[in-house]
Amino acid sequence: MNVHVPKKQLADSLGHVERIIPSKSSNPGLSLLRVGLTESALILSGSNMEIDIEARVLADVTGEGNFALPAHMFSQIVRSLPGETVSLAFGGSEVDISSDSYDTRLRLEDVASVPAVTFPDSYHGEIEAEKLVRGLSSVRYAAAVAEYQAIFRGVKLELNDSRIRAVSTDGFRLAYYHLDESSGLDGEVVAPAKSVDELVRLLVEDPVRLELVEGQLSLQSGPYRTNVRLMEGTFPDYERVIPGTFPLSVTVNAGVLSEAVSRVALVSDKAANNRVDLFIKGGLLQITAEGGYGRSQEALEVSQEGTDPEIALAYNAKYLVDALAPVAGNLRISFSGATTPSVMADLGDPSYFAMVVPLRTG
Amino acid sequence: MNVHVPKKQLADSLGHVERIIPSKSSNPGLSLLRVGLTESALILSGSNMEIDIEARVLADVTGEGNFALPAHMFSQIVRSLPGETVSLAFGGSEVDISSDSYDTRLRLEDVASVPAVTFPDSYHGEIEAEKLVRGLSSVRYAAAVAEYQAIFRGVKLELNDSRIRAVSTDGFRLAYYHLDESSGLDGEVVAPAKSVDELVRLLVEDPVRLELVEGQLSLQSGPYRTNVRLMEGTFPDYERVIPGTFPLSVTVNAGVLSEAVSRVALVSDKAANNRVDLFIKGGLLQITAEGGYGRSQEALEVSQEGTDPEIALAYNAKYLVDALAPVAGNLRISFSGATTPSVMADLGDPSYFAMVVPLRTG
Repeated sequence: MNVHVPKKQLADSLGHVERIIPSKSSNPGLSLLRVGLTESALILSGSNMEIDIEARVLADVTGEGNFALPAHMFSQIVRSLPGETVSLAFGGSEVDISSDSYDTRLRLEDVASVPAVTFPDSYHGEIEAEKLVRGLSSVRYAAAVAEYQAIFRGVKLELNDSRIRAVSTDGFRLAYYHLDESSGLDGEVVAPAKSVDELVRLLVEDPVRLELVEGQLSLQSGPYRTNVRLMEGTFPDYERVIPGTFPLSVTVNAGVLSEAVSRVALVSDKAANNRVDLFIKGGLLQITAEGGYGRSQEALEVSQEGTDPEIALAYNAKYLVDALAPVAGNLRISFSGATTPSVMADLGDPSYFAMVVPLRTG
Repeated sequence: MNVHVPKKQLADSLGHVERIIPSKSSNPGLSLLRVGLTESALILSGSNMEIDIEARVLADVTGEGNFALPAHMFSQIVRSLPGETVSLAFGGSEVDISSDSYDTRLRLEDVASVPAVTFPDSYHGEIEAEKLVRGLSSVRYAAAVAEYQAIFRGVKLELNDSRIRAVSTDGFRLAYYHLDESSGLDGEVVAPAKSVDELVRLLVEDPVRLELVEGQLSLQSGPYRTNVRLMEGTFPDYERVIPGTFPLSVTVNAGVLSEAVSRVALVSDKAANNRVDLFIKGGLLQITAEGGYGRSQEALEVSQEGTDPEIALAYNAKYLVDALAPVAGNLRISFSGATTPSVMADLGDPSYFAMVVPLRTG
């Protein structure tokens, strides 16, 4: 069983699969890569039990079979090969990997010890890769990090006949990305944010095909297939807490505001939630912070609207900066009050929506 | 006391001084930056007790004085400033830092708590910056890492009326960089390798001026001055162990050999010293390695010379790769025997010399 394959393609695909494969595990089979030989392709797959990934690499293949290799060692070797083409010769207990003057023989592992990874036979949903990547990437920051926060550590996908929406919240901030279109699927599921981080790297080609089966979201894009194990639990009814009236709003460039907030917040104490204070009046947005080292301030001219002449409130600077990051140009921040959530709209992309709860002060 | 200074120059100079200032220390004064105002310059200085650094930044200065600031906070603020010019106004207990619309006031610390840093009044030695940087950078890898290895953790400088030589050794390998010229100084000193790493970043301008005083090597290059605390102890008489006869030698491109050795060594066991075996015969250099995952080999054509027709020996792959790194083109490896040191010469730069002791095998 012989394979000839371009080094670059093999290394790139391996890189995507290898990323999720644990280098150490109490189950040694989890650190293995499964290599399948089929007519004209190598099928590489691996899993960390949370996410399965399969990559198909076009290759010149003689013979068929399934093999198991130590994922990270194989990947390191392939990346370092001297030539542009790799030859693999699978024997009984070894695979011979050669390229130019270099040659290595790696011991094959028991393919039965690699977790079985199966993908759907068909996919009933479809979405543009760029939209899905932007949606998931734009909201992922708002997911919680701490283990005890359970379902808040996921990204919710709402799919129905008129909606594709990705949502994250950790209780202090919320972000969603909303498309008025249908993927062809119907369901509400929550995927672990960490799996979403891997997933977006694999959405390289249109269309992305989707399938929802018991406890699992499956996607296929070009040469990559992936299964994401879904989270169990009830996602909060977040729409209920989004305010409806905003007595004051400002329009400002997101990058300019983000840099000013970051700069001013440098002196604020981490232990005091990185507090920055905002005071808006007469078209001027004043940002101030103070801490053990001293105090800082910066003023930005903004376009101000609304019935209230001024507002003073405080945020965790990191939450504000995170919410601004997905916005490339101007954004509108609408204030519902000093202690109630502020919401942000990307004026260049109406799909993005963010909400940040101000810090309780005084 | 007011200062106007270009942000880029201030940030660059601060970056060099800040690098060595501890962010936490049992002596809080060590985490401070000393800022001196003199006519037309800001003088920034700091120390970690092993190395002192001073940077002079041309500035528009009104007044004189010395101040102490939290080094990392000040540096972070300067890097993030919005404008191209920074204004500093030193008051009684605060410094006001402003740039465009941004303004911060940092609390000044007690300048008496910053360790006093003094530099020589005159320098009696001189050397070209590029030569000193190349010399120190070429040998530094051979210094030992482990705490208990004492003097082996340093880089020795041998200075006399016909020699400038930098030497490092950890007992298993040795590197020196030799110039047949005089710096104007006379002495043999050992500087901690970690201080050498900082030092080379500061040798930005010709000439580098040097001075040796009690327990300290002082250098000045352009706007930077530095003192390096020297190590105490006896450096080994390394010339005694350099072999004199070489029954076999090969000439090969350093980069090609380094890549091949790294690639083959991937399968070797870390616990077995990353062993790679070399076998040279008939103008062919064969590299092999084996470990728990399998075995690898690669053969390179080399130009072979000497009275012996062949040699077989083993090295720690990392030691071999480290010794090749300073060589840009071809190198000659001369073998004194299978268990005695091999020496390497850079055919493009006769100043560089390296020696590696083979692994004991069998």
